[in-house]
Amino acid sequence: MNLNLLDLRVIESSAFIAAPLAGLTLAQFGADVIRVEMIGGGIDYGRLPLMPSGRSLYWTSLNKAKRSIAIDLRRPEGRELVQALVTAGGENAGILLTNIVSKWLDHGELAKARADVITCMIEGNQDGTTAVDYTVNAATGYPAMTGPGSIDAPVNHVLPAWDIACAFQAALAISAAVDRRRRSGMGAELRLALSDVAFTMLSHLGLASEAQLLGEARPSLGNHIYGAFGRDFATADGKRIMVAGISAAQWAALVKSCGMEAEIAALEGRLGKSFADESARFDAREAIAALVEGWCRARTLADIAVIFDRNRVCWGPYRTTPDLMANDPRVRLGNPVWETLDPVGIGAHRVAGSPLRTPAEPRGAMTPAPLLGQHTDEVLLGVLGLSSGAVGKLHDSGVVAGPERDPTA
Amino acid sequence: MNLNLLDLRVIESSAFIAAPLAGLTLAQFGADVIRVEMIGGGIDYGRLPLMPSGRSLYWTSLNKAKRSIAIDLRRPEGRELVQALVTAGGENAGILLTNIVSKWLDHGELAKARADVITCMIEGNQDGTTAVDYTVNAATGYPAMTGPGSIDAPVNHVLPAWDIACAFQAALAISAAVDRRRRSGMGAELRLALSDVAFTMLSHLGLASEAQLLGEARPSLGNHIYGAFGRDFATADGKRIMVAGISAAQWAALVKSCGMEAEIAALEGRLGKSFADESARFDAREAIAALVEGWCRARTLADIAVIFDRNRVCWGPYRTTPDLMANDPRVRLGNPVWETLDPVGIGAHRVAGSPLRTPAEPRGAMTPAPLLGQHTDEVLLGVLGLSSGAVGKLHDSGVVAGPERDPTA
Repeated sequence: MNLNLLDLRVIESSAFIAAPLAGLTLAQFGADVIRVEMIGGGIDYGRLPLMPSGRSLYWTSLNKAKRSIAIDLRRPEGRELVQALVTAGGENAGILLTNIVSKWLDHGELAKARADVITCMIEGNQDGTTAVDYTVNAATGYPAMTGPGSIDAPVNHVLPAWDIACAFQAALAISAAVDRRRRSGMGAELRLALSDVAFTMLSHLGLASEAQLLGEARPSLGNHIYGAFGRDFATADGKRIMVAGISAAQWAALVKSCGMEAEIAALEGRLGKSFADESARFDAREAIAALVEGWCRARTLADIAVIFDRNRVCWGPYRTTPDLMANDPRVRLGNPVWETLDPVGIGAHRVAGSPLRTPAEPRGAMTPAPLLGQHTDEVLLGVLGLSSGAVGKLHDSGVVAGPERDPTA
Repeated sequence: MNLNLLDLRVIESSAFIAAPLAGLTLAQFGADVIRVEMIGGGIDYGRLPLMPSGRSLYWTSLNKAKRSIAIDLRRPEGRELVQALVTAGGENAGILLTNIVSKWLDHGELAKARADVITCMIEGNQDGTTAVDYTVNAATGYPAMTGPGSIDAPVNHVLPAWDIACAFQAALAISAAVDRRRRSGMGAELRLALSDVAFTMLSHLGLASEAQLLGEARPSLGNHIYGAFGRDFATADGKRIMVAGISAAQWAALVKSCGMEAEIAALEGRLGKSFADESARFDAREAIAALVEGWCRARTLADIAVIFDRNRVCWGPYRTTPDLMANDPRVRLGNPVWETLDPVGIGAHRVAGSPLRTPAEPRGAMTPAPLLGQHTDEVLLGVLGLSSGAVGKLHDSGVVAGPERDPTA
């Protein structure tokens, strides 16, 4: 737990990205997040990339800072244990986060045992049909305007942006519902469809209204920034940088850095426009880019960095992820957001906590992702208050398991 | 307000995407969000796309469901009004959301007037240097693995994914800090750097650990899904669809739909692998795609839809945004997430509220984005408790203004 903002206990039954990331986010904010796992691992436990030990860097990255209980979810006794965990007492408890549709985890079922239960269900589409980030993204229009893309040759994004947005919405939903429950005693059934997360965003960013009112499909602009000035440029030493001139200050800094005041004034005069207006910069983007392009191509990245940083230009180099991790000071341990963890079967490496900082308060460290069932006994004893005899019987009958049944242990 | 989950009053002083979207998210969850505006409009008030009236579809989309007070922020009297708004009494008040660095809105300054104030500051980088979605994204490594991209020819994303992630994190941070203040009385200084939001996500998704431990830069895969099977395909009638076979059920549905059981079995036999393992599907993606490609190319979109939907394949057509808004049932008014608004100078159109649904509770309607200063008087009278005489004097001296000073009114 990096932060002590949330004081919750969340039972997470989930797979893939959105729901586990929501749980991770809550855990880093201070929640006790207990993942319910199938004995032997769920659908995404072996997802690429893998370490030689068989442990998944994907899974262990999304499930840091959580506890794990391994249960045979096909058996009624196992399902009853999960229901009991979700509906156990305590004003900070009674919270389920899931993306797995199962009748026995229905809000109505759980509310019979705890009237003020809060459940958050992440779905593909509202009607229960399947949708994943890739299929939702295809429908947004973004792949038709990305890079060299068009509707006939769409370019998918690689970042699962809609899963991420959905995760943080779900975390917010749970936090807000808990706040309301403290004030009013009300529980909440929270439902969030991935497709709604994506399509509502088109409305919030103005693309949905543009489509309806102006009937326009935004064309692909390559790496140009829409609505202002910005693009990628090559340097003399074969590197590439992204440069943005969105605000007036950023634009002025760029013009000054490139020493292109006269050329820009001439261009403004010829067009009868002032580039103080960002949309005029957008209209003239090719002509402006030609000036910046020549300037960058004549200088090395190191030389450009000195000039741009001195003038506070908004820019940055393109990196590969290994280059970022090796060379960018923003991901070093001096940044309080990063710490070193050493998960079993993975080995020590830098991992990130919550990006949120509360400078006046101490920041806690996370625990690495658990082995499956690493906390089975402590959860059964501590949360459900079972006797050690009862816990032993659950093990003996195969309803629960400890970390010895983790296939990567 | 769509939902009544949050009962807060938030003072928002912001521009661009992340901070306004955080405010919109809180407003749709139930918060009273009051935007503080420069008289005549801030830096992003005229951002593209524009309606013929001059009103921005970008700005009016991000500022739905909020109130607006217009103040001359260059004058000490104006700044004192903002400070008074942020630190005004009430257990639900005392909250600032901003991305504008200004000494007079420092957490420490505001805490002198209200010890339990909650401030949330969105920054580019932690050190105060500038960074925007485009420059941060360049450093993540994603543009080098998008579409046909490489580190020498990166492809930028068009969706401002990091701004969106940052917005929802900020909204969560405020909700969680308010929850803690209710329990403990503590205020909070919350800081969130856009670059940390992006780079922490690389850790959560396993790319940061992959880079450190395996030293690998993930190559560009075009439209292939990493780690499982999925890609775009052309249909007989010149459309394109995205198809995903990530889970075992999705994969089985695809094999059945395409009637390729025998070919897949032969391929598995030849490779000595079982495609029950999603990573084996990933390794054999080109051979599998060749089979699906031929099947899709022989059928129209309509024919494919019938077969895929019957078998519950995870798929979807590529659309332009106008096509989505015109033809996709998921963005029609029957979906409770969408409603019709008619903002001044824009005209009636469908807009989205919060993607979150609380099925057992009534859902409220939003108000359209305000004109600048539309709520100046009611905020001064109702929140600060000024007399109408005092409000009149503030108008006369030009410290505040009503909607008549909105350049688009």
